[in-house]
Amino acid sequence: MTQAIQSMPRENQYLIPSEPYYQESGDEISLYQAAYDSRIPMMLKGPTGCGKTRFIEHMAWRLGKPLITISCHEDMTASDLIGRYLLNADGTYWQDGPLTTAARIGAICYLDEVVEARQDTTVAIHSLTDYRRTLSLEKKGELLQAHEDFQLVISYNPGYQTLMKDLKTSTKQRFAALEFEYPDEETEVSIVCHETGIGKVTAGRLIQIAKHARNLVGHGLNEGISTRLLVYTAQLIQKGIPPVAACHMALVRPLSDDADIRETLEATVQGCF
Amino acid sequence: MTQAIQSMPRENQYLIPSEPYYQESGDEISLYQAAYDSRIPMMLKGPTGCGKTRFIEHMAWRLGKPLITISCHEDMTASDLIGRYLLNADGTYWQDGPLTTAARIGAICYLDEVVEARQDTTVAIHSLTDYRRTLSLEKKGELLQAHEDFQLVISYNPGYQTLMKDLKTSTKQRFAALEFEYPDEETEVSIVCHETGIGKVTAGRLIQIAKHARNLVGHGLNEGISTRLLVYTAQLIQKGIPPVAACHMALVRPLSDDADIRETLEATVQGCF
Amino acid sequence: MTQAIQSMPRENQYLIPSEPYYQESGDEISLYQAAYDSRIPMMLKGPTGCGKTRFIEHMAWRLGKPLITISCHEDMTASDLIGRYLLNADGTYWQDGPLTTAARIGAICYLDEVVEARQDTTVAIHSLTDYRRTLSLEKKGELLQAHEDFQLVISYNPGYQTLMKDLKTSTKQRFAALEFEYPDEETEVSIVCHETGIGKVTAGRLIQIAKHARNLVGHGLNEGISTRLLVYTAQLIQKGIPPVAACHMALVRPLSDDADIRETLEATVQGCF
Amino acid sequence: MTQAIQSMPRENQYLIPSEPYYQESGDEISLYQAAYDSRIPMMLKGPTGCGKTRFIEHMAWRLGKPLITISCHEDMTASDLIGRYLLNADGTYWQDGPLTTAARIGAICYLDEVVEARQDTTVAIHSLTDYRRTLSLEKKGELLQAHEDFQLVISYNPGYQTLMKDLKTSTKQRFAALEFEYPDEETEVSIVCHETGIGKVTAGRLIQIAKHARNLVGHGLNEGISTRLLVYTAQLIQKGIPPVAACHMALVRPLSDDADIRETLEATVQGCF
Amino acid sequence: MTQAIQSMPRENQYLIPSEPYYQESGDEISLYQAAYDSRIPMMLKGPTGCGKTRFIEHMAWRLGKPLITISCHEDMTASDLIGRYLLNADGTYWQDGPLTTAARIGAICYLDEVVEARQDTTVAIHSLTDYRRTLSLEKKGELLQAHEDFQLVISYNPGYQTLMKDLKTSTKQRFAALEFEYPDEETEVSIVCHETGIGKVTAGRLIQIAKHARNLVGHGLNEGISTRLLVYTAQLIQKGIPPVAACHMALVRPLSDDADIRETLEATVQGCF
Amino acid sequence: MTQAIQSMPRENQYLIPSEPYYQESGDEISLYQAAYDSRIPMMLKGPTGCGKTRFIEHMAWRLGKPLITISCHEDMTASDLIGRYLLNADGTYWQDGPLTTAARIGAICYLDEVVEARQDTTVAIHSLTDYRRTLSLEKKGELLQAHEDFQLVISYNPGYQTLMKDLKTSTKQRFAALEFEYPDEETEVSIVCHETGIGKVTAGRLIQIAKHARNLVGHGLNEGISTRLLVYTAQLIQKGIPPVAACHMALVRPLSDDADIRETLEATVQGCF
Repeated sequence: MTQAIQSMPRENQYLIPSEPYYQESGDEISLYQAAYDSRIPMMLKGPTGCGKTRFIEHMAWRLGKPLITISCHEDMTASDLIGRYLLNADGTYWQDGPLTTAARIGAICYLDEVVEARQDTTVAIHSLTDYRRTLSLEKKGELLQAHEDFQLVISYNPGYQTLMKDLKTSTKQRFAALEFEYPDEETEVSIVCHETGIGKVTAGRLIQIAKHARNLVGHGLNEGISTRLLVYTAQLIQKGIPPVAACHMALVRPLSDDADIRETLEATVQGCF
Repeated sequence: MTQAIQSMPRENQYLIPSEPYYQESGDEISLYQAAYDSRIPMMLKGPTGCGKTRFIEHMAWRLGKPLITISCHEDMTASDLIGRYLLNADGTYWQDGPLTTAARIGAICYLDEVVEARQDTTVAIHSLTDYRRTLSLEKKGELLQAHEDFQLVISYNPGYQTLMKDLKTSTKQRFAALEFEYPDEETEVSIVCHETGIGKVTAGRLIQIAKHARNLVGHGLNEGISTRLLVYTAQLIQKGIPPVAACHMALVRPLSDDADIRETLEATVQGCF
Repeated sequence: MTQAIQSMPRENQYLIPSEPYYQESGDEISLYQAAYDSRIPMMLKGPTGCGKTRFIEHMAWRLGKPLITISCHEDMTASDLIGRYLLNADGTYWQDGPLTTAARIGAICYLDEVVEARQDTTVAIHSLTDYRRTLSLEKKGELLQAHEDFQLVISYNPGYQTLMKDLKTSTKQRFAALEFEYPDEETEVSIVCHETGIGKVTAGRLIQIAKHARNLVGHGLNEGISTRLLVYTAQLIQKGIPPVAACHMALVRPLSDDADIRETLEATVQGCF
Repeated sequence: MTQAIQSMPRENQYLIPSEPYYQESGDEISLYQAAYDSRIPMMLKGPTGCGKTRFIEHMAWRLGKPLITISCHEDMTASDLIGRYLLNADGTYWQDGPLTTAARIGAICYLDEVVEARQDTTVAIHSLTDYRRTLSLEKKGELLQAHEDFQLVISYNPGYQTLMKDLKTSTKQRFAALEFEYPDEETEVSIVCHETGIGKVTAGRLIQIAKHARNLVGHGLNEGISTRLLVYTAQLIQKGIPPVAACHMALVRPLSDDADIRETLEATVQGCF
Repeated sequence: MTQAIQSMPRENQYLIPSEPYYQESGDEISLYQAAYDSRIPMMLKGPTGCGKTRFIEHMAWRLGKPLITISCHEDMTASDLIGRYLLNADGTYWQDGPLTTAARIGAICYLDEVVEARQDTTVAIHSLTDYRRTLSLEKKGELLQAHEDFQLVISYNPGYQTLMKDLKTSTKQRFAALEFEYPDEETEVSIVCHETGIGKVTAGRLIQIAKHARNLVGHGLNEGISTRLLVYTAQLIQKGIPPVAACHMALVRPLSDDADIRETLEATVQGCF
Repeated sequence: MTQAIQSMPRENQYLIPSEPYYQESGDEISLYQAAYDSRIPMMLKGPTGCGKTRFIEHMAWRLGKPLITISCHEDMTASDLIGRYLLNADGTYWQDGPLTTAARIGAICYLDEVVEARQDTTVAIHSLTDYRRTLSLEKKGELLQAHEDFQLVISYNPGYQTLMKDLKTSTKQRFAALEFEYPDEETEVSIVCHETGIGKVTAGRLIQIAKHARNLVGHGLNEGISTRLLVYTAQLIQKGIPPVAACHMALVRPLSDDADIRETLEATVQGCF
């Protein structure tokens, strides 16, 4: 099985097969393009569900480069990124981790929510983000020079960071940054329509509810309603669920268990439908 | 043995063989059906023992889809969900975890009490809950595209969460939600009668005791008496235990060691029988 | 060796060979019998050394069912209960843990001081304690349906629990409960005489000392003198140790290092002999 | 190598070959003898270096039973006591830990400073200390019935225990106890002379210094000077070191870095020589 | 593969192939040269991105010695530095870690951000930093005498250390130290021009922005703008991004999410372009 | 490779080949000699860099005994000291750790900075430091009787200990102690001259600076300048570095980042050269 992995052209496995739908809201495409041309490491900042993952998939497709996405979490070790020794009948053999694979084949490596990872994983990327562009496979005794197409991209949600869990300044200093927000009203309506086939009027009402909810952020809500939840709601309506029930199911109940917040959100839903 | 597992048609192992008894208390069946039709990830909210597990087993039977249930706990790792390398005479081989199996065979995957799990397990499910519907088997170097029948369902008990242990907002934003409560009086009487064969009068008295106890939640009790404990009590009465002794054994003693609470509950029992 | 274990009739190994001496102090035998008949999971509550372990051994003998006892502790993992992969010349093979064995062969499984265990072990038992009666061997990919004779029993010492270490309510709601106390005076005298062959007068004096000490619980003593320590004292007296010395050795010194408590206990001993 | 261990008569390895010198200071020998005759588990209480280890070696020699001593520490696991699977060319095989060996061959098993061990090790001994006298080798699936000569003995230093680190009451309730103190003056002089060949006058002066130091316990010193340090000092004097230098080296410097305590101790030394 | 590693001339792998560009700002080259001539262990102190890594690469090239760089992190163990046993068909074999390799082949070993490592790694280097110049491979049972060309160099960022995380004084006492600051204005202009081909005027403006930002350190910023970020900005401008947009992307957004700080920085950018 | 280790005469590997230079400052050589003659375990107390390691190397050479030095750290386990099972083609085999090796071959075993080690390592040495002189290889099932030449020596820096990290009194009571201080002025001058070939006048000035710095201990400095740093400074001066620059590099910068302390030290340096 691992033979299969080593003999197949790994680059192809990570190419985005068709254009991911992405609605540009500023000049982020040309800015990213310039950064990629200089292989400057990039940090994508912004709240949950505002389209960072979609953007990087779109850019990888546009540039025709393979994309390797890694969801970071607090139990992820440097070995999960870099690789480890496994055992077969002839003893141990080395298997590259996803970061190493990306550096070898010249992929864009996207570390999603990098701040969730343990410090050893963030330190492991340092030598890939300065002029050296190397990755030290210490356990294997190899110093890997990154492929010339390789670029490192991380996502970062500023609303999340705490004193206990933040990127070290010496890590931040290694990235240029783009900032993402929820799309403007017109863009969001067109996204919801495009993804679900729902009508513009209903989509518009859903976006109105989302705007109200986003104003509650910091007053009892941690985060606003994402575009993703709006898409869920429109899908339920398309399947015949009454709009109010669909909103309760996909916009209100997942977000909060606080009675006041719920009442406010439910009143908003009632007012829009 | 592992060969056996790999060669048997795994889907069948996880099909629910006969209809699980479930008494609908609202429109949850049609709402869930619509969500499943769009493969929207679902969150089932509600207190212990109110029937969430029964509901999902019923829905899996109704949809004719395999169901894989995973009880989450704080020592469960992402590997327990996704899979790991094991060793045989020819070296290591990969064994899928239950989440991977569900994504491969197109099962409904039910993560019970997901908030108990460590963050790495909750982050591991992210890419399965957005438009990508992929699962990255990082240790194996495989990017698994979920089967078109696959759906992810989690349970969540809002009374349990604390500041220290809650779902991240970026996880909540990936689910539509249904809420469950204890059944209404009539429904609960018919459940207890159906499960134990006890008479309606006795069942009604037991439900009266439960209603009193549920009013004490927040005033010394963490949770009310579940339908399950009512079934236990009825079973003991059916075996010839006097009702008051059965209530003490199955309703009062398991719930609390507080003298005042016990006195109140025992007085209620005395008043009903 | 493991072959031997797998080929021997495992049920027999866990049968109680002869009747364990047990003096009933209420109707606990018939209550337990009724719970077993419905396979209701049981919780035995009570202080250290009051006979919970003896009771369950007696009931297993009376019912003619195998008994598997597991002493829980804070380093016990779910794997210790459920099983794990071991290695032989042909690679890894699975070995059932004691809980899995109990569910397969239809034993009564007694988890002693379950609150000491980590949460993953208590969550692991959930699916065995509701209508499913299944145990998910996730690492093996097997969903085990429990034998029809299987029953789960746990012990629980209410005096021990703290805010940090208690059973979750969702666990408690899965058990009916019996409560145990120190035996009454007459019963305890007859136990000490039966176990050691000592005379009734001396036994009575020892029980007097124990009653005094039990009144000190909460006033400098964590727990009273158990029946077990009374048996030790009587054994030492039977071997020719003077009663006062035997009491100091087996009743006073093990319990406390507090000077005041000791003085009180020693005065009580002096007054009785 | 492990074959060698399994084929040699293990009992002999643990027999005490010659009489360990022990000076009785009360009736501890007959009290222990009576406890051993009933196989009552024993707890030896007392400060460091007062002769608990020597006593148990003496008793094992006197009873002609093998003795297995285990120094407990906070990283010791239940597996270190009970045993584990090891690997050879044919796969894993089981190797008994020292507690299991003691229970099999009928040795006295002495757990030195048991309170240092983790709770899982103390819970592991419970079933060996009540009427069952069994040890559950859960990982091996064996329920070991202890040899009739087996006895469990633990040491316990009351001055050490803290709120964080103490034996559970349910553990203490399983032992009868003997208490040890530093020997009286005459006994201690004869011990130091016997062990080092030093004259009675010099030994007497050393014991005077020790008595002064023991009065400082609780006033800046955690523990008094042990008999062992007196023996060291006498040995240094026998090798030609001037008594004052020998006292500084073996009695003063190891005990404290506090300037006041040191001055007091040095003045005492100066006054005695 | 590991054979390949062992048979290739390892020294060559770690030689710096071409002169790394380094602009001396004092007499650090001759001071370091003198320290290397006596093989005195060196500590390089200074903030992130001021050129410590570049300096040590330059010196290794100048001295013609191999350089092994190790990025330290809090999950790095002594084994990651020293080596470990791996498994092949004939059993375990030893593989040197990077520190051991450096000591064997006579490389300069550079431990980057050593204070991030766990104490066991810092203690492991002690015997290499005094007159012994040995490394104890305890797990292998080998006492390695370092090659005469070997030198140990560590980096240390004084602004980072806290009470919880600092080098032990007994470690600091083993190193002579060089201090690095951001380069002076003229040097920094010439670095940015040399690295990016941008004009002197634009480079000068970027350095002006950096000087303003560095004055904010301690007043809301943890660290100033590094030379590396200035290089990123110049590269973006060279790719056709307007200077203000390039500054926002590479100088402002990565550094801070504080609204006031951002406003100040943006005003500075506006004032310079 | 491990075969080679087992077949070579291990004693020779640990013999000190030539006399380590050591300048006696009191009667520590004869005191240590007497302690070794009685095999009394020794504790060497004193600050960093005052010559404890050099002293024990000198004594091992003088006595003609092998010396095994172990640098302790907080991640060192008892297995690192005692030994462990490793794997080869025939299964596991045992490899002695350095403490076990020392006890077998009759070496002096020097545990450097023992207080850094975890408690299990300090408890593991107890049975080697009393009249038993045994080491229990519990995992191997062997009770090792120490070679008659074996002696245990530990180092201990009193300035370091905190309430959280100190030797247990029951450990301290097992050692006689020698105390080391920085050498007196004349001795230190002759050491610096002997080690570096520098002239007496310059060496004297360096010692003057060290004396000033040592007076600052407790007033902003944790530890004084060690003899080792004086040797570094003299070496740099011998290589042509101006004395003031050499002092800044090797005496001032490594010790402190506090501006006041630095100013004081720099003024002292200026005043001396």
